[in-house]
Amino acid sequence: VPRSAPAFGDRLAARVSARESQIVLGLDPDPGALWPGCEPTRDGPPPARAAEAVLAHCHALIDAAGPACVAAKPQLARFEALGAAGWEALETTTRYAADQGLMVIADAKRGDIDVTADAYARALMGATETPWGPARGLGADMATVNPLMGEDALSPFVACARAAGRCPLVLVRTSNPGAADFEELELAAGGWLWERIARMVDTLGAENVADCGLADVGAVVGATVPEHLRRARELMPNAVFLLPGIGAQGGRVEDLAPAFAPGRAGGLIAASRSIANAYLQSGGEPAAAARAEAERLRELAWSLCE
Amino acid sequence: VPRSAPAFGDRLAARVSARESQIVLGLDPDPGALWPGCEPTRDGPPPARAAEAVLAHCHALIDAAGPACVAAKPQLARFEALGAAGWEALETTTRYAADQGLMVIADAKRGDIDVTADAYARALMGATETPWGPARGLGADMATVNPLMGEDALSPFVACARAAGRCPLVLVRTSNPGAADFEELELAAGGWLWERIARMVDTLGAENVADCGLADVGAVVGATVPEHLRRARELMPNAVFLLPGIGAQGGRVEDLAPAFAPGRAGGLIAASRSIANAYLQSGGEPAAAARAEAERLRELAWSLCE
Repeated sequence: VPRSAPAFGDRLAARVSARESQIVLGLDPDPGALWPGCEPTRDGPPPARAAEAVLAHCHALIDAAGPACVAAKPQLARFEALGAAGWEALETTTRYAADQGLMVIADAKRGDIDVTADAYARALMGATETPWGPARGLGADMATVNPLMGEDALSPFVACARAAGRCPLVLVRTSNPGAADFEELELAAGGWLWERIARMVDTLGAENVADCGLADVGAVVGATVPEHLRRARELMPNAVFLLPGIGAQGGRVEDLAPAFAPGRAGGLIAASRSIANAYLQSGGEPAAAARAEAERLRELAWSLCE
Repeated sequence: VPRSAPAFGDRLAARVSARESQIVLGLDPDPGALWPGCEPTRDGPPPARAAEAVLAHCHALIDAAGPACVAAKPQLARFEALGAAGWEALETTTRYAADQGLMVIADAKRGDIDVTADAYARALMGATETPWGPARGLGADMATVNPLMGEDALSPFVACARAAGRCPLVLVRTSNPGAADFEELELAAGGWLWERIARMVDTLGAENVADCGLADVGAVVGATVPEHLRRARELMPNAVFLLPGIGAQGGRVEDLAPAFAPGRAGGLIAASRSIANAYLQSGGEPAAAARAEAERLRELAWSLCE
């Protein structure tokens, strides 16, 4: 495999080690529930004003909780809901997170036929050639991807990410109750649908495992289903796991140990509302409460792998 | 079910009847393969220049082929690849298509947990409330949706669309070769995964079937797998089918008759590259060739239901 960048797994492991954190700061800004003080300063149509406030909120959240985290995870839906102004806020937020030393996970859950998957991959983790020069994409280090449409829908994400030393994170067993509807269907050939997806993740990633043991194709495995974590790790020994569902969705950091079998960078713990809204529980300043909650999660997770 | 708008199925059937067309014009603008003459007029960074050219291309395509079509289907990946400038071109293209009397299908294939699915649904087919006023979304009449994460990932799309007289189109059996990897897995309980998804589409749509017999939850069923069409129609007697895969992907209009069982509006035939790139086959002006190909598909499909 030709590489134009350092192996993703080693880059991630170095960052986790340097920041002593496996926590991913979810940026999921509901314009109706931003931090107090995040107000637009300029006049303009509602989406532009809301986008300015969303941007202020995201910057404040990164300033407060970012130091306890290894990555930021913008939820694209929240930005798209504000149209072009929202996408601009997304681009600015992503650059700001990277400038603060955070890796960026584009929570996009895209999936489509080959040429379209390639366009999405370039939009999120690469660049699009145009007759007027390259259009740099969002510049995310990782992006969540939906595997329903099969291998030819995943391969362009793998190829684009690999060429740039980045990593798609494939939905394998998600954190929501509805995951049971299809992902947990038992197959006639044995096993469950999510296990079949896990095998494809392992196969795609086996082509590029870094020295540290981590591949450059990862998996989303809900922190709400710890009973599946050990099995997921068996099926995908080298995959980076993104573990959403802590806090608001009911998952507990204490249950995530199997994710860390290939080392601390093997399990990235995503928390959004539990950090951003910590002040609603604890009282006090939003920033101080967010920092304290992120730091609490960081210490808890870090101590699981000693 | 409270309704704030006319039933979607009746609105779609009326539009198909008025325009005498079941053809959906795919807008899938590769910045490296736009029509000759679609050049940016302003200076600026590459994404802004490319977005201006993409917009010119989409307008020209709508002007040329739109009169033979009932809807336009922008592929969101192509616009997102150009960032905020691309999203602005998407918004303008969508408004232009609607102004020309076309319905709009946002080909987005989104899917996520409940609160995020709601944000996506509002971004595409609704509006987002903010403290600074409502942010109108893209205003699409239909949007493609990915069901992998289960019913709680679909329900917010159904609720948002229903309140606005619009319709999500759920991926059931897609047109790409990789669809066989997961969608066609046989289940231990019998049947195939895609059939299970089809049953959920039918159940969700059964709550709001219009007088014409069409529900407000539709399905994407690839035109490349005509052998599945009859079964798909059995399982989803009231669903609008979006049928991609004609032309470049190998599907044939002649094979689509089962889709039209609930009437002509029951099957919407998507064509992108075969219309936009018709001039590469036939020679001549891109616009004339696109119009001729769209008109050829329109007549062929219309004649199948007499």
